[in-house]
Amino acid sequence: MYELPQDITQEKPDVFRKKCPARYLLSRVSGKWSMLIVDALHNKNLRNGELMRIIEGISQKMLTQTLRELEEIQLVKRHDMQTVPPHVEYELTELGKSLREKICAMDRWIEENMLELIANNPSIQLKRNKT
Amino acid sequence: MYELPQDITQEKPDVFRKKCPARYLLSRVSGKWSMLIVDALHNKNLRNGELMRIIEGISQKMLTQTLRELEEIQLVKRHDMQTVPPHVEYELTELGKSLREKICAMDRWIEENMLELIANNPSIQLKRNKT
Repeated sequence: MYELPQDITQEKPDVFRKKCPARYLLSRVSGKWSMLIVDALHNKNLRNGELMRIIEGISQKMLTQTLRELEEIQLVKRHDMQTVPPHVEYELTELGKSLREKICAMDRWIEENMLELIANNPSIQLKRNKT
Repeated sequence: MYELPQDITQEKPDVFRKKCPARYLLSRVSGKWSMLIVDALHNKNLRNGELMRIIEGISQKMLTQTLRELEEIQLVKRHDMQTVPPHVEYELTELGKSLREKICAMDRWIEENMLELIANNPSIQLKRNKT
């Protein structure tokens, strides 16, 4: 668990500082799984199985763990409909929606520049030449 | 090493697809260390020791490894001055500078919303109440 520095309100938030809460938050929201989950949740609540289908390759364990972490910093809200069989949906909070804009900008940049990044990558080129 | 799908030029880049190169690239550039290195490199070339000082808490091993990964997808350029003692500098490429805008937007969002995210975080609140 993250330990909050005592002088929290007196310092300028700074992701470069090891003990700044901003660094802790960066480590929570960065990483492909967090970014893909936040990116996937837009306009529509999604269920566990829907997220699994959209985010190809994520394991159930990683999905559950990352959703819990995003819930902890209240970027994602969990709705348990209290039904039998269970029906649980996930939704971005207002903060989550605001962050999603930044994450989407990065994801779409990667997609738009993919061919150029790959063209420049000697290790990927090597694989391509071999096929 | 990433294995390039054969139908690479025929499909729409998509970070949600497990075998899309965009997913591979996302996993390379997401993560706090990549993001902090790209964020730190702006306008000015930086040496290894300077990066270590700016990015508090990064280990030499992680810095070296992440710089090499960013070099591989040509977001970062390494300049070896071929001097004795050795003098090596790192610089963002044009693609790296373009990506940096997106990464900075995310880092600055986290800093700007830090207090709200912390206020909402019960696990951090708990720690604060205890001190």
